[in-house]
Amino acid sequence: MDRKQDASQDLLGEVKSLIENNKILELRELLEEYHTIDIFDIMEHLEEDMKIKLFEVLPLDVAASILEESDAQFFSSTLSKIDIDHRKNILELMSLDDMADILSQLEEGEIENIMELLSKEDADDIKELLIYEEESTGGIMTTGYIEVNKDMTAKEAIEHMRSHAEEAETIYYIYVVDNAEKLVGVLSLRELITARDSSIIEDLMSENIISVYVDEDREEAVRLVSKYNLIAIPVIDRQKRLKGIITVDDIIDVMEEEASEDMYKFAGTSEQERDFVEKVNPTSKEQIISSVRARIPWLIITLLGGLLSMVIFSNLDFIMNPTYASLVFFIPVVIGMGGNIGTQSSALAVMVLSNKDLEFKNVIREGMVGLITGIICSILIGIVIFIFMRDIDIVLVVSLSLFINMIVGAMIGAFMPFLFKKMDVDPSIISAPIIATLLDIVGIAIYLMITTLLLAKIV
Amino acid sequence: MDRKQDASQDLLGEVKSLIENNKILELRELLEEYHTIDIFDIMEHLEEDMKIKLFEVLPLDVAASILEESDAQFFSSTLSKIDIDHRKNILELMSLDDMADILSQLEEGEIENIMELLSKEDADDIKELLIYEEESTGGIMTTGYIEVNKDMTAKEAIEHMRSHAEEAETIYYIYVVDNAEKLVGVLSLRELITARDSSIIEDLMSENIISVYVDEDREEAVRLVSKYNLIAIPVIDRQKRLKGIITVDDIIDVMEEEASEDMYKFAGTSEQERDFVEKVNPTSKEQIISSVRARIPWLIITLLGGLLSMVIFSNLDFIMNPTYASLVFFIPVVIGMGGNIGTQSSALAVMVLSNKDLEFKNVIREGMVGLITGIICSILIGIVIFIFMRDIDIVLVVSLSLFINMIVGAMIGAFMPFLFKKMDVDPSIISAPIIATLLDIVGIAIYLMITTLLLAKIV
Repeated sequence: MDRKQDASQDLLGEVKSLIENNKILELRELLEEYHTIDIFDIMEHLEEDMKIKLFEVLPLDVAASILEESDAQFFSSTLSKIDIDHRKNILELMSLDDMADILSQLEEGEIENIMELLSKEDADDIKELLIYEEESTGGIMTTGYIEVNKDMTAKEAIEHMRSHAEEAETIYYIYVVDNAEKLVGVLSLRELITARDSSIIEDLMSENIISVYVDEDREEAVRLVSKYNLIAIPVIDRQKRLKGIITVDDIIDVMEEEASEDMYKFAGTSEQERDFVEKVNPTSKEQIISSVRARIPWLIITLLGGLLSMVIFSNLDFIMNPTYASLVFFIPVVIGMGGNIGTQSSALAVMVLSNKDLEFKNVIREGMVGLITGIICSILIGIVIFIFMRDIDIVLVVSLSLFINMIVGAMIGAFMPFLFKKMDVDPSIISAPIIATLLDIVGIAIYLMITTLLLAKIV
Repeated sequence: MDRKQDASQDLLGEVKSLIENNKILELRELLEEYHTIDIFDIMEHLEEDMKIKLFEVLPLDVAASILEESDAQFFSSTLSKIDIDHRKNILELMSLDDMADILSQLEEGEIENIMELLSKEDADDIKELLIYEEESTGGIMTTGYIEVNKDMTAKEAIEHMRSHAEEAETIYYIYVVDNAEKLVGVLSLRELITARDSSIIEDLMSENIISVYVDEDREEAVRLVSKYNLIAIPVIDRQKRLKGIITVDDIIDVMEEEASEDMYKFAGTSEQERDFVEKVNPTSKEQIISSVRARIPWLIITLLGGLLSMVIFSNLDFIMNPTYASLVFFIPVVIGMGGNIGTQSSALAVMVLSNKDLEFKNVIREGMVGLITGIICSILIGIVIFIFMRDIDIVLVVSLSLFINMIVGAMIGAFMPFLFKKMDVDPSIISAPIIATLLDIVGIAIYLMITTLLLAKIV
C-alpha cells in the first residue's frame, strides 16, 4: 500500500550494513538517489552513533535540509557531536525560518552557542524571526525571498534573481519594493522571463498585491493562499515594508495542524495532547499529566452538568409507583439519542460556521431533520417496546419523549454554535461532551414533563 | 477583521452603480485592479441579469478564470446567456481539469453542447479526464504541464517552455520524457534557467521522481506533496507514461475537504451533508433528506445499543428496594462521564493513527489518564453526595462506579481504533455517538455489578 514506506525499509537495511562496513563512498552514492525526506526517515530509525556517522558523510546541502525537517532534540543532539567547522558550514545553508523555529524550542544558552556560529547577517535575521509569536504570520515566515527595485530593467532583475537564487526559498515570485523598502508590486518568474530585457519592472509588475501583516494570525495567511491559489504570500509590517514571505509548503503544514486542532476541540481536549502522545515514549509521566490537564476542565464541567441532571431526575416520582417503575429503564436511551443527534447537528454547524455565516434558518432546518429522524426512531422503539412489554402507556411515554427529545436535541446542537458566534465567542469551543451533557439535562427534563403529563391522565 | 470582505462590500456597490449607468469603460478599469477571485465573489452577490452584463465585459482570460472557480450551476447559467463566439473563446482559455470537474456534474446533453465548442485536442483531453473517478488522482489532475524530451538542450527546452507557458498550469517544474513518452526525470525551472544553454536535459534532470499513479487515491498525492514540499506532482499510468500533473492549489482544496470529512465522520454524519447545507437555501427538501440519510444509520445503530443498555438496566433490582432507590438518579452522570472521557480518548487515538501506528501501550496510557481523572472526579462527586445526602453507602457505590467507569471508558475509547486498525478497518468510522452508546452499555453493566457487590454486603 505505502510503497515509499517499503522502499525506506529496504534502504534502512542497506544503509546500516554500509555504515557497519565503513563503505562511505558506496553509502554516498546510494543516498544520492534518495530524497532528503527519505534520508531523514532513515536517520530517525538509526541508533545514535550510526545516525551521527551517516550525518557526517552527507553533502552539506542535504545535511542542512535534514536539520530543517528535524525537531529541537534531533537538531541539538546531532549538531553537538560533529566538528565545529562542519557545523558552521551546515548552519550557513539552513533556511532561516526553519532554524528560528527550532531555536525557539531550545534553552537560552544553547541558542547563543548556535548564534555564535552564524554570520552577522543571518544572526540578525534569526533574532528578528525569534521575536514573532508562533501563531502569527511572522512566526512562520522566511526571509529567503527575492526582492528587486521597481526601477530595475527586466534584464537587471533576472541577473539579480540568478545571483540570489541560492538563498531564496522560492524564486517563483519576485517582490518589488520602492526606495523606502515598501512593497509596491509583485511579479511572477513566468512574467519576468517572458518579458523583453529592457522593460522596466514597475511596468511589468502587478500592483494588486495580496499580503498579510507580520503580526496577524497565521490562519489569515492560510485563508489567503488557499483562496487565491498562491505559491507564496508576502508578509509586511504596518508601514508596508516587506519583512518576509510564507511559502505554500509551510501553509500546508499549518493546515495539517489546524485541521486536527478542530477535531480535538470538538472531542473536548487539545492538540497539544497529541503532540505529546506522538513522541517516542507514550507512557511517560509528563505525557499522562499533559493529557489529564487538557481534559480535566471539560470533564469537571460535564460532571457538574451531570449532577444537575441528577437533581432533575430525582423529581421523577413515578419510580416510587411500582406500576410505572420500568419507565426509568428508558432514560439512558431517550437522553442518549438526544445527545447523539445534537452532536451531529453541532458538528455540522461548527464546520459550516468556519466557512460562512450561519443563519437562524439552519436551526429550523435541524429541527426538521430531528423531526424526521425522530419519527423513524420513535416508531422503531415503540414497536420494540410493544412486542416485549405489551403496554401501550409505556410505548406512548417513551416514543413521545424520544421524538421531542430528538427535535430539541437537533435544534440545540445547531443553536449553540449560532449563539456563540452572535456573542462573538469562538464556536469551536463547543465540544461533543458539552453538548452531550447539556442534552442529558434537557432530555431528563423533557422526560419528566412528558411522564408527569401523560401519567397524570393515565393513572 | 476580514479586510478583504470589507473591500468586496465597497466594490459591490460601485460595480452595481457602474452597471446600472452602463459605464462599461469605467467598470473595466475598476475591475483591472482586482483579483479574479474577488470579481467572482462580487458576481455571486449580483442578480442574474447584472451578473451576465458584468461577465460580458470581462477580458477573456478573467472570464475563463472565473468559470474555473465556479460550480456547474453558475457555469451553465452564465455560458448559456452569452454569445456563442464569445463562449468559444472563453472555453478555449479555461484550464482543462477545472472544466472537466464542472462538466462531470452536468447532464449528458449539456456536456455534448460544450464539447462541440472545444478544439478537437481539448475535447479529447476532457474526455480522458472525465473517465477518472473524483476521488482518484486522475480526477484532480490537469493536462496543462510542460514536457520536454530528454535529448533537448537547455536552450531548446527554455524555448519550448516559453512557447507553451500560456497553456501550462505551472511552469515551475518541467517534466522530462523519453521517446516512448515515459516519465524519466524532472527539472525545476530554477535549475533550467541557471543552466548553460548547451547542457543536455538528461544531464540536468533529477531521476529521483516522486509521482503518483493515475488510479490511486487522491490522498496519496496529498501525502506526498505535503511530505516532500512539492509545488506539483506528476501523475503517470502503470506503464509510467506521463498523464498529467496535480498542482499544490488543488492539493490544498483536497486537504480542506478531507479535514472536514474526518470531523464529520467523528460526529457520525458525512461531509456530503455540509456540501448541501452550504448551498443557498438551507431549508430545501433535498437538503433535509440528504441530512436524514447521512445520519439515520448511526442513529439507528445507537438506538439499538440504547435498547441493550435498557435490558441491562432492568436487571438493577435495587430500585425496588426503597432504601437505595436514589441510586438510580446517578446513572446518567456515571455513564455520561465514561462516554465523555471515551470520546476524548478515541478522538486522540483516531488522530494519532492517521499519522503513525498506534501501539497497545497507548491503551495503557489512556487507562492511566482515566485513573487520574477518575480519582479527581470521583472524589468531587463523593463530596457533593456526602454534603447533600450524608449517606456513606451511596457515596461508595457512586464514586467507585464513576472511577472504574472512567478508567474503562478511556481504555475502550483508545482500544476501539486500535482494534479496527488491526482488523484493517478504517478507524475513522468510529464516531462519538457510537462510542457514547457503547460506553452507556458498559457503564450500566459496571454500575449493576458494583451496586450488586457492595449492596449485598451492606444490606
